[in-house]
Amino acid sequence: MRLLAGCELIVEADVDCAVVAMLRPRSGDAQWLVSEHYAFDPHVRPTEFVDSFGNLCQRFVVPSGRMRIRTELEVETERSIAVAPWSAPMAPASLPGHTLQYLLPSRYCPSDRAFERAQEIVDQAGPRSGQVGAIVAWIRRHIAYRYGVSDATTDALDTIAHGAGVCRDYAHVGITLCRSLRIPARMVVGYLYGLEPMDLHAWFEAYLDDRWYTFDATQDAPRGGRIVIAYGRDAADVAFLTNYGLLQTVEMQVWVGEKQ
Amino acid sequence: MRLLAGCELIVEADVDCAVVAMLRPRSGDAQWLVSEHYAFDPHVRPTEFVDSFGNLCQRFVVPSGRMRIRTELEVETERSIAVAPWSAPMAPASLPGHTLQYLLPSRYCPSDRAFERAQEIVDQAGPRSGQVGAIVAWIRRHIAYRYGVSDATTDALDTIAHGAGVCRDYAHVGITLCRSLRIPARMVVGYLYGLEPMDLHAWFEAYLDDRWYTFDATQDAPRGGRIVIAYGRDAADVAFLTNYGLLQTVEMQVWVGEKQ
Amino acid sequence: MRLLAGCELIVEADVDCAVVAMLRPRSGDAQWLVSEHYAFDPHVRPTEFVDSFGNLCQRFVVPSGRMRIRTELEVETERSIAVAPWSAPMAPASLPGHTLQYLLPSRYCPSDRAFERAQEIVDQAGPRSGQVGAIVAWIRRHIAYRYGVSDATTDALDTIAHGAGVCRDYAHVGITLCRSLRIPARMVVGYLYGLEPMDLHAWFEAYLDDRWYTFDATQDAPRGGRIVIAYGRDAADVAFLTNYGLLQTVEMQVWVGEKQ
Amino acid sequence: MRLLAGCELIVEADVDCAVVAMLRPRSGDAQWLVSEHYAFDPHVRPTEFVDSFGNLCQRFVVPSGRMRIRTELEVETERSIAVAPWSAPMAPASLPGHTLQYLLPSRYCPSDRAFERAQEIVDQAGPRSGQVGAIVAWIRRHIAYRYGVSDATTDALDTIAHGAGVCRDYAHVGITLCRSLRIPARMVVGYLYGLEPMDLHAWFEAYLDDRWYTFDATQDAPRGGRIVIAYGRDAADVAFLTNYGLLQTVEMQVWVGEKQ
Repeated sequence: MRLLAGCELIVEADVDCAVVAMLRPRSGDAQWLVSEHYAFDPHVRPTEFVDSFGNLCQRFVVPSGRMRIRTELEVETERSIAVAPWSAPMAPASLPGHTLQYLLPSRYCPSDRAFERAQEIVDQAGPRSGQVGAIVAWIRRHIAYRYGVSDATTDALDTIAHGAGVCRDYAHVGITLCRSLRIPARMVVGYLYGLEPMDLHAWFEAYLDDRWYTFDATQDAPRGGRIVIAYGRDAADVAFLTNYGLLQTVEMQVWVGEKQ
Repeated sequence: MRLLAGCELIVEADVDCAVVAMLRPRSGDAQWLVSEHYAFDPHVRPTEFVDSFGNLCQRFVVPSGRMRIRTELEVETERSIAVAPWSAPMAPASLPGHTLQYLLPSRYCPSDRAFERAQEIVDQAGPRSGQVGAIVAWIRRHIAYRYGVSDATTDALDTIAHGAGVCRDYAHVGITLCRSLRIPARMVVGYLYGLEPMDLHAWFEAYLDDRWYTFDATQDAPRGGRIVIAYGRDAADVAFLTNYGLLQTVEMQVWVGEKQ
Repeated sequence: MRLLAGCELIVEADVDCAVVAMLRPRSGDAQWLVSEHYAFDPHVRPTEFVDSFGNLCQRFVVPSGRMRIRTELEVETERSIAVAPWSAPMAPASLPGHTLQYLLPSRYCPSDRAFERAQEIVDQAGPRSGQVGAIVAWIRRHIAYRYGVSDATTDALDTIAHGAGVCRDYAHVGITLCRSLRIPARMVVGYLYGLEPMDLHAWFEAYLDDRWYTFDATQDAPRGGRIVIAYGRDAADVAFLTNYGLLQTVEMQVWVGEKQ
Repeated sequence: MRLLAGCELIVEADVDCAVVAMLRPRSGDAQWLVSEHYAFDPHVRPTEFVDSFGNLCQRFVVPSGRMRIRTELEVETERSIAVAPWSAPMAPASLPGHTLQYLLPSRYCPSDRAFERAQEIVDQAGPRSGQVGAIVAWIRRHIAYRYGVSDATTDALDTIAHGAGVCRDYAHVGITLCRSLRIPARMVVGYLYGLEPMDLHAWFEAYLDDRWYTFDATQDAPRGGRIVIAYGRDAADVAFLTNYGLLQTVEMQVWVGEKQ
C-alpha cells in the first residue's frame, strides 16, 4: 500500500541547542521511500551520519528562537505483515552474530531481571502457544494503555509493576520478556496507518525462524501499514529528537494517510 | 544554493533483468537532501543496501518491456567549493587508514603504471605549483574533451594515449596521476549545475591537508553547485545503472536548475 | 612496557551450552599484540565475529563436562597513560558522530537519572577542577571498594546508594555521571599490571579534547600497564563469557607480569 | 588439522619508509588462530586498522637500516575443503548485496573484457560440467606455471595472452572469467600446507549455492590445509607488504608444517 505520512515539530530554544534527529526512514526490504521532503525553517545546515544500527541521524543546531522541522513522506509498504505466533525460539548457537546484541539487557529492558516472569507467562500459555505470542497476549491482558503513568525514566519492570503505559512501554515489556527467554528482540519506531490517536509509534521485532518478525501489543491483531524510521536496543537508541541543551517542543503533528 | 535536479531513464528489456541503480544521494557534510522523489513505472519492489563506500544502492528487477525510472531532487549545496591548489601531499604515515584504499590501483586507474608520467608533470610545473593543481592543468592542456573516443573499457592510460575523452576519462586520468604520487584520490559522480550539455557528471577528489578536496579538470575554474550521488575507486564502483542481463537505455534526460 | 598476561577458566556444563567469549585483545593505537595463545581443552570449533563496537567475539559450544579455556598474551603497551584531569567537556555540537552513542543511558548506567548528583559533584569541586577529575575524586571518597555488595543486576544508582562496589561498579558510576554532564564515556575491560588482587579489571574512558582518555577510580593515581580486551556502553556489552544455558565457572586464574 | 606456519621478512630502507603489512590472519568460520607471535626487530610501534574487506592491516614505519619482521602461527584448519564443481551460478537477483562488489572489474581482473573467452570455455566444457569447474580445468590446461613471466603490472588478460604465470596470475584469470559470467569471485592470500616450493600463496573463491567455495587452479585436486590471511578484489587489495617509499625485501622465508 502507498502511504502519505509526515510530521511537523515546532521547537523553541533560548540559546543555541545541538540536536540529533531521527526522522528519515531508509528504503529496505519491506518499504520503499518513493518521495520525501525534509526541511527546516529557519534553514540550518544539518549533517547526517549512520549510527551503529544503520539508522540515518541528522545533526544540527537549533538557533535561539522558534524552529519548524517538517518531514513529508510517500512510502510503499505492506498492507499486511508476516506473522509467526507459534514459532519456537532458535537455539542460541544457531543465531546469526548480528542478532546477539539484541539479547543483552539495555537501559529500559533489564531482561536480566525478568526471567521468572517470562517463564511463568509461557508456562501458563501452554505448549501450543508460541512464546512471543504468549508474551504479547499477556501484555494485552495485564498492561492498560494509559497516558501519564510513564516518563523518560520508566523501564519495563516499572511498567509491569504499574500495570499501565503507552506504546513505548508496551514495546519495552515485550522486548524484555523475549530477551530473558533468549529470543533476540529490538525496538522499532515509525508510523502506523490508522493509529488512534495519531502519533509517532513504537513496537518491537523478535528474531524467529531466521528472520525478524513484527509484534505490536498495542494492536488486537497483526497490522501492516507501517513505516520504519529506526531500530535500536530500546527507546534510548531511537529518540526522534535528542537535545543536548534546553529545548522545548511547542507543538507536534503527525499524519499518515493512504494515497488514493 | 538550492538546486532542483533529477533524471529520467527509459529502459527496455526483452526478459526480466536484475539491476542495481545508484541514483539516491545522501545528505552529508556538504549537501542536504531537502526533497526527493524516486519512482518506477511500472512499479517494482526495490530493496536498498549500502555498499562498502557508504553509497545507497537500489536493487530491483526490470520486467520485460519498457520501464521508466525517475528521480527528482531538491538539494541545498555550496555555490563555491573549497580549493587547495598549492597544498603539498601528506606524508603516507600521516594519512588516516580509511584513505589508504584510494592509493591502490583500480580497474580504470592503473596508477602502478603512471609514476614517470606523473613525476614529469609535477617537475615541469615547478615547485610553486601544487601537485594536484599541476595535474589538473596538464589534463586541461593535453586531453581534448570529445565524445566517442572512449567506451566502458577505456582506462586512464588509454585516455592519455588517445589524448581525448569525456568527464569520466578526465577523472580517471586525474585519479591515476594522483595515486601514483601517493595522493589518495577517489571518483565522484553526481550533478553539476550549469554543465553543458547537461548530463550526469563525474569528477574526482584528492585528500590533502587532512580532508577531501574537489577537483574537476573539465572546468576552467573551480565551481560549486554539485550534488554528489556516489563515491568509489573509479567508474566501476559508481555506475548509475548496472545491469545483470540485457537491457537497453532507450532514453535519458538529466536536469539541474537553481530554485528561485 | 612489555607484559605477559593471560587467564585460565575452568567451566562445567551438564548439557551442551552455547557461549560467547571476549578474551582476544586487538592491536590498536596504544597496544600491540606481540604474541597470543588461545586454546580449549577439549578442543572445540570456535568461530569469531566482530560486534558493533569492534570487539572480537569468540562463539563456541561448551560440551557437557569440564572444559579449560586458556589464553596467554604478550603485549607491548604504555607504562604511563595520558591524563586530562582539567579538560573541559567538548560542546555537544563538536563531538564526532561515533561518540554520541556513549552519551545515551544504558542498562547499568542510567545517566538520565543522575544529572543532579553529577552537577552537585562538579559544583562542589569548584571551577579549577576538571569535571571528570572531580567525578573520579568523588567516587574515591564516597564509594568503598568491597566485594559481595553488588551482583550482575547492580546499576550505578544502586552503587551510589550502597556506597560500595567493585571495579565494574566504579566504572559504571563514573560513566553514568559523565554522560549526565554530556561527556561521552565508555566501559573498558582488560588487564592491569600490578592489580591487587589480580583479576580481570574494568575501568572507563571519557572523550575530552577530541580523544579518549583513560580514567580508573579504583587507583589513587593514573597508571598505565593496561591491556584492553573490549569496549562497550557498560558491562552488558563486554562480559568475558556470556553463556546461553547453564554453565558454572569452577575456577578462574588471571596473571599479568612484566617481561624481563 | 593443526598447522604451524609463519614467515620472516628482512627489509632494508635508506630512509624511513611507511608501510602497511597484512600478515595477521583472523579466526573465522573455517580457521581458528590458536597461537600467534608477530614481532619486529628493531621494535617499532605499529598500529592496526580493519580495511573495507575486514582484513587486519598493520601500519608502521621501517626505520633506515635493516628490519626483521617475523610472524609465527598455530592454526586449526580443515584438512579437506568443500567443493562445488557442478554448481550452477546463482541468479543475479538472488545474490546477497555484499557479494555484488565481487562482480565488478578490478585492476588485475578486467572482467568487462573477458566475456567471449569465458563463454567459449563453458560452451566447450559442455552442460554437465560446472562453470567454475570448467574455468579451473581450462586454466590448468592453458596456463603454464612459470616464474618470471609476470610482474606487479600483469593483469589476467596479459596472463591469458602469455599463457604462463604464477599463483597470483592463476587466481586473477579465474576471478576474471567467473565475474564475466556473473559469478562473484574474490582473491584470497594465505598459506597452503604442502606447497612446493613453499611461499605465500594466492587462490580464489567463487560464490555458489549461497556460500563461498575455494578454488585453486595451481593444484590438480581440491586441497585443504589453508590459512587465509586476507580477502580482496584482486592482488592490489591484499599485498602482504605495501611500501610508501623505497624499500627492499632482502630475504623472505615462509614455512608451513603439520603439528604432531
